[in-house]
Amino acid sequence: MDTRTGLPVVGMVGGGQLARMTHHAAIALGQSLRVLAATETDGAALVAADTVVGSHTDLDALLGFARGCDVVTFDHEHVPTEHIRELVKAGAVVRPGADALVHAQDKRAMRERLAASGIPVPRWAPVRSPDDLTAFAEAEAGPGAGWPLVVKAVRGGYDGRGVWIVTGPDEVPAGLDLIVEECVPLRRELAAVVARSPFGQVAVYPVVETVQRDGICVEVLAPAPGLSDERAVLAQDLAIRIATELDVIGLLAVELFDTGTGLIVNELAMRPHNSAHWTIEGARTSQFEQHLRAVLDYPMGDTSLTAPVVVMANVLGWEPDGRDMSLDERLHHMFASEPAVKVHLYGKQVRPGRKIGHVTALGDDLEKVRASAARAARWLSEGGEP
Amino acid sequence: MDTRTGLPVVGMVGGGQLARMTHHAAIALGQSLRVLAATETDGAALVAADTVVGSHTDLDALLGFARGCDVVTFDHEHVPTEHIRELVKAGAVVRPGADALVHAQDKRAMRERLAASGIPVPRWAPVRSPDDLTAFAEAEAGPGAGWPLVVKAVRGGYDGRGVWIVTGPDEVPAGLDLIVEECVPLRRELAAVVARSPFGQVAVYPVVETVQRDGICVEVLAPAPGLSDERAVLAQDLAIRIATELDVIGLLAVELFDTGTGLIVNELAMRPHNSAHWTIEGARTSQFEQHLRAVLDYPMGDTSLTAPVVVMANVLGWEPDGRDMSLDERLHHMFASEPAVKVHLYGKQVRPGRKIGHVTALGDDLEKVRASAARAARWLSEGGEP
Repeated sequence: MDTRTGLPVVGMVGGGQLARMTHHAAIALGQSLRVLAATETDGAALVAADTVVGSHTDLDALLGFARGCDVVTFDHEHVPTEHIRELVKAGAVVRPGADALVHAQDKRAMRERLAASGIPVPRWAPVRSPDDLTAFAEAEAGPGAGWPLVVKAVRGGYDGRGVWIVTGPDEVPAGLDLIVEECVPLRRELAAVVARSPFGQVAVYPVVETVQRDGICVEVLAPAPGLSDERAVLAQDLAIRIATELDVIGLLAVELFDTGTGLIVNELAMRPHNSAHWTIEGARTSQFEQHLRAVLDYPMGDTSLTAPVVVMANVLGWEPDGRDMSLDERLHHMFASEPAVKVHLYGKQVRPGRKIGHVTALGDDLEKVRASAARAARWLSEGGEP
Repeated sequence: MDTRTGLPVVGMVGGGQLARMTHHAAIALGQSLRVLAATETDGAALVAADTVVGSHTDLDALLGFARGCDVVTFDHEHVPTEHIRELVKAGAVVRPGADALVHAQDKRAMRERLAASGIPVPRWAPVRSPDDLTAFAEAEAGPGAGWPLVVKAVRGGYDGRGVWIVTGPDEVPAGLDLIVEECVPLRRELAAVVARSPFGQVAVYPVVETVQRDGICVEVLAPAPGLSDERAVLAQDLAIRIATELDVIGLLAVELFDTGTGLIVNELAMRPHNSAHWTIEGARTSQFEQHLRAVLDYPMGDTSLTAPVVVMANVLGWEPDGRDMSLDERLHHMFASEPAVKVHLYGKQVRPGRKIGHVTALGDDLEKVRASAARAARWLSEGGEP
């Protein structure tokens, strides 16, 4: 309890953009997010008054951080499961808990659990040697059978890292704990995001389409264009079912493959997620506020859209192009071009291809809104009209 | 320039809720507001990483604070004019400048300047002695003539403080620099808020109705119900004209009396203003982002409404009622009652009648939206259904 405000203290492990935007939401709720940041220049550390610098793999740092927090939650999946259990033993309230979070940390555990619950997942197998891939490729016929295959690191992947598409057993990365999956023939990718509170209340957002480039989400369309009500409800039901069966507290993002004839679960995340950044302006309650409400066991907020169409585009760091145009200059041009587009910058050093921010456009006409978001993102990144 | 982000640094003098909400907007723009707070428990100091504790009347504190800021702006009007001039002499960029800001600090200077520019203001006079009031009361006939009269402190008033309605010369407060004004027979109060950049670009918000109780704004209705387009444009034109003539940089809020037959300027504020808190969710660009864009000379953002009707209600600290219900409990009840209402709490200690936050409701139907905002504010304040 923060005696200055009479409100509980939420601590978030990790100081990246998700913690930065969660702090943004915390301010409105009368709170100040407590952040455990790796460095004092992490995006959240630059803006949050109550920042502690320390490593999320250092148990003592975690224990010290958790003291004085009413609840501890996460900006990423990289806290060792055994450390989370130690935090709970020491009396900390950790949401989501270790038994839930492991399914967002360990892809093998996730696949095993979802498959056992009868939730549609790609055909998959654990990998102990390259021979396992050959056996997997030759095991079945039909769509998605044979090479290429998808190989994934069991732990530690994000933004396309830790995922490889391989066309033969020689391409398997060495020295890693891996699983193999069929290369699902998909029409597009969707995401269903739900929040769940300790009370058990769930609140699910409209299902969105996520557009990837090189394994990185570059654009999110809300609601997913042309998705039937029946398919949207199916996706939302899957998210609610997974959140409930795994006892997730806080946000759960379910990344889905839309095969044209059905939905298959790709990945899970148990934290605010790139596929729901659009909710800051595009939904009545942002995912960041919703995550805070869920971990605090407040009643959930309204997840309705605030406009018929919402498009988010990620802003990626640009390649050096000899023009030496600063981010500040790029912002000027973007604001002049797109006065209604909203920007969120993460306080990060610019590196080529790194997510340094995102933009959100709202309106009635998908193509216009999408073009507006793309122009804004391009002004901030490549620095010009598309 | 913040070398960590490549973006300019904005410093705000004053650490109250306006600085707190400006920091909230700054985070999205990639910034971190630098705050000069009176105490480390000021609402903005609780949430902003870059807070300096010092007095806004201490020139050395101001000079030290301004070093390293690309631009200095204000959360309130109480910085002495001569200190602002010293800041500029020392090389600081201060927006709005002293020559503009004095018209929001000194009611006599404001009345003189607006009257000289032919802008409609109440009939008024400076006060040197109680006899001046008697002379003023007896000077003219017609609506608003005679007693009661409105007496105002030239400097330092806010939220109804520094304003008295008097029915005779004996009621004049002693020892203060005062002006007297007719008690304007008004139908309602309106506000027109405009932002202006150093380039000279102006962006004006839809005109709103403000509802006062005991001199404190308790409710804002956007757009002002039943206001003709002609009258709305007149109010917006007045705001643009005043901003331009006074060379205001940043936000200007113009509080207006709607007499039923015309508009009369009541007060000016040159900072984010309670009458535009609704813009956080209710306009495409919030007043806080707009103020930052203006003082940074970025192009202005879109001021369109995000819903047909937006209602803001202030949350006032409650009288002790023996129930010992905490703010946290009140929040639970409010969220359960009004899942679509947005709350902004200011991190303040609760005192009876003190503004501790506000709520915003959006929708299509004024009476429903107004009732929703009123219920939410009541849950947070008195703690029950209206």
